[in-house]
Amino acid sequence: MISERMEKQIQFIVTIDELKNITRQSVTIRDRRHENDAEHSWHLAMMAMILSEYAEDKNVDIFRVIKMVLIHDLVEIYAGDTYCYDEKGYEDKDEREQEAANRLFNMLPEDQAQKMMALWREFEEMETEEAAYAATLDRFQPLLLNYNTDGHTWQRPGITSAKVLKRTAVAKARVPQLYEYIERLIQSSIERGFLKP
Amino acid sequence: MISERMEKQIQFIVTIDELKNITRQSVTIRDRRHENDAEHSWHLAMMAMILSEYAEDKNVDIFRVIKMVLIHDLVEIYAGDTYCYDEKGYEDKDEREQEAANRLFNMLPEDQAQKMMALWREFEEMETEEAAYAATLDRFQPLLLNYNTDGHTWQRPGITSAKVLKRTAVAKARVPQLYEYIERLIQSSIERGFLKP
Repeated sequence: MISERMEKQIQFIVTIDELKNITRQSVTIRDRRHENDAEHSWHLAMMAMILSEYAEDKNVDIFRVIKMVLIHDLVEIYAGDTYCYDEKGYEDKDEREQEAANRLFNMLPEDQAQKMMALWREFEEMETEEAAYAATLDRFQPLLLNYNTDGHTWQRPGITSAKVLKRTAVAKARVPQLYEYIERLIQSSIERGFLKP
Repeated sequence: MISERMEKQIQFIVTIDELKNITRQSVTIRDRRHENDAEHSWHLAMMAMILSEYAEDKNVDIFRVIKMVLIHDLVEIYAGDTYCYDEKGYEDKDEREQEAANRLFNMLPEDQAQKMMALWREFEEMETEEAAYAATLDRFQPLLLNYNTDGHTWQRPGITSAKVLKRTAVAKARVPQLYEYIERLIQSSIERGFLKP
């Protein structure tokens, strides 16, 4: 007997295959095609594993960080990706994403839906140490891709180093050694001419 | 001061971006393009979270399972993907992959290289409860994609339900409820005419 619970879980797993179709602004390093949210989430999870020693709080729960980055973009299956420097898109982003979260997470059995919703809210609110570390990685990863593709998405009008640096502010207090790396990377991008000062 | 250790770690993170270019036989559900190893690894990590209650051993360490599925295909960056029913490709698969693991993991600081190598070997040996659960997910995920794309990769010559079922044998003892689901899915695929009996 296959339980109704398992049917729901597997239906959810099938549905989130769609994350592989949600494209981002960042491009992959070798062939410069737009990466999608599933690839991005995997990359963040790897970074969480490898860079955990730089979290300022040594008690940060890396397992929770990894779960957080794995699910943080799922709502975009219904809400779409909002480019981080798109001011208009940000106006109704919260509302669109909350609706998407309700629709998507409630496909799961109730206990799992609640846990996933709480984890996603924690990421969005960026207050706990785990959420701050996850957010730092989420800001740092596109910088790494940009740096290795001659500043691909930074060529858009209106992107300046000040804007890029401002978006990584969360790293400053919570992951200071990584923030130092980010500052150097931005400086180097300006010097190489692929980011406006 | 950026440490040499951090430089190595970030160089590794940049290098593994390449996993997004390693394509598999399975196709994504909506647009039926070949999925890549990064997307596949993300999907497995999500499955590990959602289906953990079905592991026969209730003490299975899901965090280790998730780390294992996140890294299990990294060696394919240098060794390429070997299709699971490619008998010729399997002849030297172990050797090619061990060489790739040495080359890739040794980019990391030594302590992290050793941990990652141990985790990858554990997955490959499929003996611990964690490795068996990870392997079950790795076998089950392409079945789900095939089932939802009219048996896309099962149309190749020589693929039969017996071969597909045999490959999922690891699930039978270790994740029996999921094995029951797999059996039903295979039966349904035969009935619908997209898997040879």
